[in-house]
Amino acid sequence: MTRFDVIGLDADDTLWHSEDSFLEVERHFVELLTPYVAVGVDIPGALRATEQRHLPISGYGVKAFTLSLVECAITVSQGKVPANVVGEVLALGMGMLTEPVRLLDGVAEVLADLGRDHRLVLITKGDLVHQSRKLESSGLAHHFAHIDIVMEKDEATYRRILGDLGVEPDRFCMIGNSVRSDVLPVLAIGGDAVHVAYHITWEHELVDHDGSIVSAETLRDVPALLR
Amino acid sequence: MTRFDVIGLDADDTLWHSEDSFLEVERHFVELLTPYVAVGVDIPGALRATEQRHLPISGYGVKAFTLSLVECAITVSQGKVPANVVGEVLALGMGMLTEPVRLLDGVAEVLADLGRDHRLVLITKGDLVHQSRKLESSGLAHHFAHIDIVMEKDEATYRRILGDLGVEPDRFCMIGNSVRSDVLPVLAIGGDAVHVAYHITWEHELVDHDGSIVSAETLRDVPALLR
Repeated sequence: MTRFDVIGLDADDTLWHSEDSFLEVERHFVELLTPYVAVGVDIPGALRATEQRHLPISGYGVKAFTLSLVECAITVSQGKVPANVVGEVLALGMGMLTEPVRLLDGVAEVLADLGRDHRLVLITKGDLVHQSRKLESSGLAHHFAHIDIVMEKDEATYRRILGDLGVEPDRFCMIGNSVRSDVLPVLAIGGDAVHVAYHITWEHELVDHDGSIVSAETLRDVPALLR
Repeated sequence: MTRFDVIGLDADDTLWHSEDSFLEVERHFVELLTPYVAVGVDIPGALRATEQRHLPISGYGVKAFTLSLVECAITVSQGKVPANVVGEVLALGMGMLTEPVRLLDGVAEVLADLGRDHRLVLITKGDLVHQSRKLESSGLAHHFAHIDIVMEKDEATYRRILGDLGVEPDRFCMIGNSVRSDVLPVLAIGGDAVHVAYHITWEHELVDHDGSIVSAETLRDVPALLR
């Protein structure tokens, strides 16, 4: 007898590395742009402001991020960046779309273990094509009974997914690296959640919260917590 | 007694105008780029080649199209386009994401009519955020029992959707403007389909086919055809 019927898993920074690529691209972006930008201008700050402005229109994911990189390159340099450098910026972003997937430690074993007595469901934000490509090339797709790539992980989204799956909230547990997206909305609808931190958290996902949250040091510690 | 339980509807160029915006943006793009491009260079041809190359990586939709516009602007001008013109190109593409939805004639009435005795399902390719935004602002969302935004409309996709809906192919009819995406794969899995042509067809959706296809002049003619 298990405590849960369905276990939801986040993808980026829960199953495979993601945020570190964004930071690496940002670092390159700053290097490329610095010669064309006035001294003292905060390039990462400008990029984050552009991303935040675009978020409701273009959503999460690498394509949206790349569009923000290009726009920010032009505005932050006041139009002084040459086209070939814009081309390099574009290639930096687009390159993330075909980067090999780098699994986090122990992921395949943990999914095999949890999958023995639970239905596993992948619930991830981001771009349809890119997330599907990563899942396919990860060699993990066969562990999942259902894949849901969503725009926003809020209470309404989780309610809709549990409804589609025909599972009661108290038989559902979500596992992921974002307190904001993977934990709080699931607890709010009466489900359970385990937070597995990644070493970097995207600023947008940071959230203040009180109340107790169940955390695991790594994904390897999750099965024991759930049983 | 109806012939079908579930009716699938495509969105772009079936419920609302879409392809004409892409063509309008392309026209502006050519105007913007012409001063920086050698005489005789086929700018629309270069754009289409860029799009085709990006398609497996970035998929369908406006964000992918905008990334292609930016890349093409740089390559087709051999890096001679100034950054502020690249900015205008980017804004052209991004502007499509917030364009108001323009419904095709009679859409709301036809959905209300068909919805009286069928479950209606929206099945569309493209970008999760943009398609959701268009549907929400269209005032049509309440007609649909289910929304599926997919990467590719092929036999496997339709089989998966019909499985999720618990409907047999012979009780399903798809309506859309693309023979390639809305008609042929549905017929191939034993479903029915009605082709409702839009006045422009994206080159990528053109397909050679033999065999008979049921066509309606406009969406208004569909209910009579289905009953």
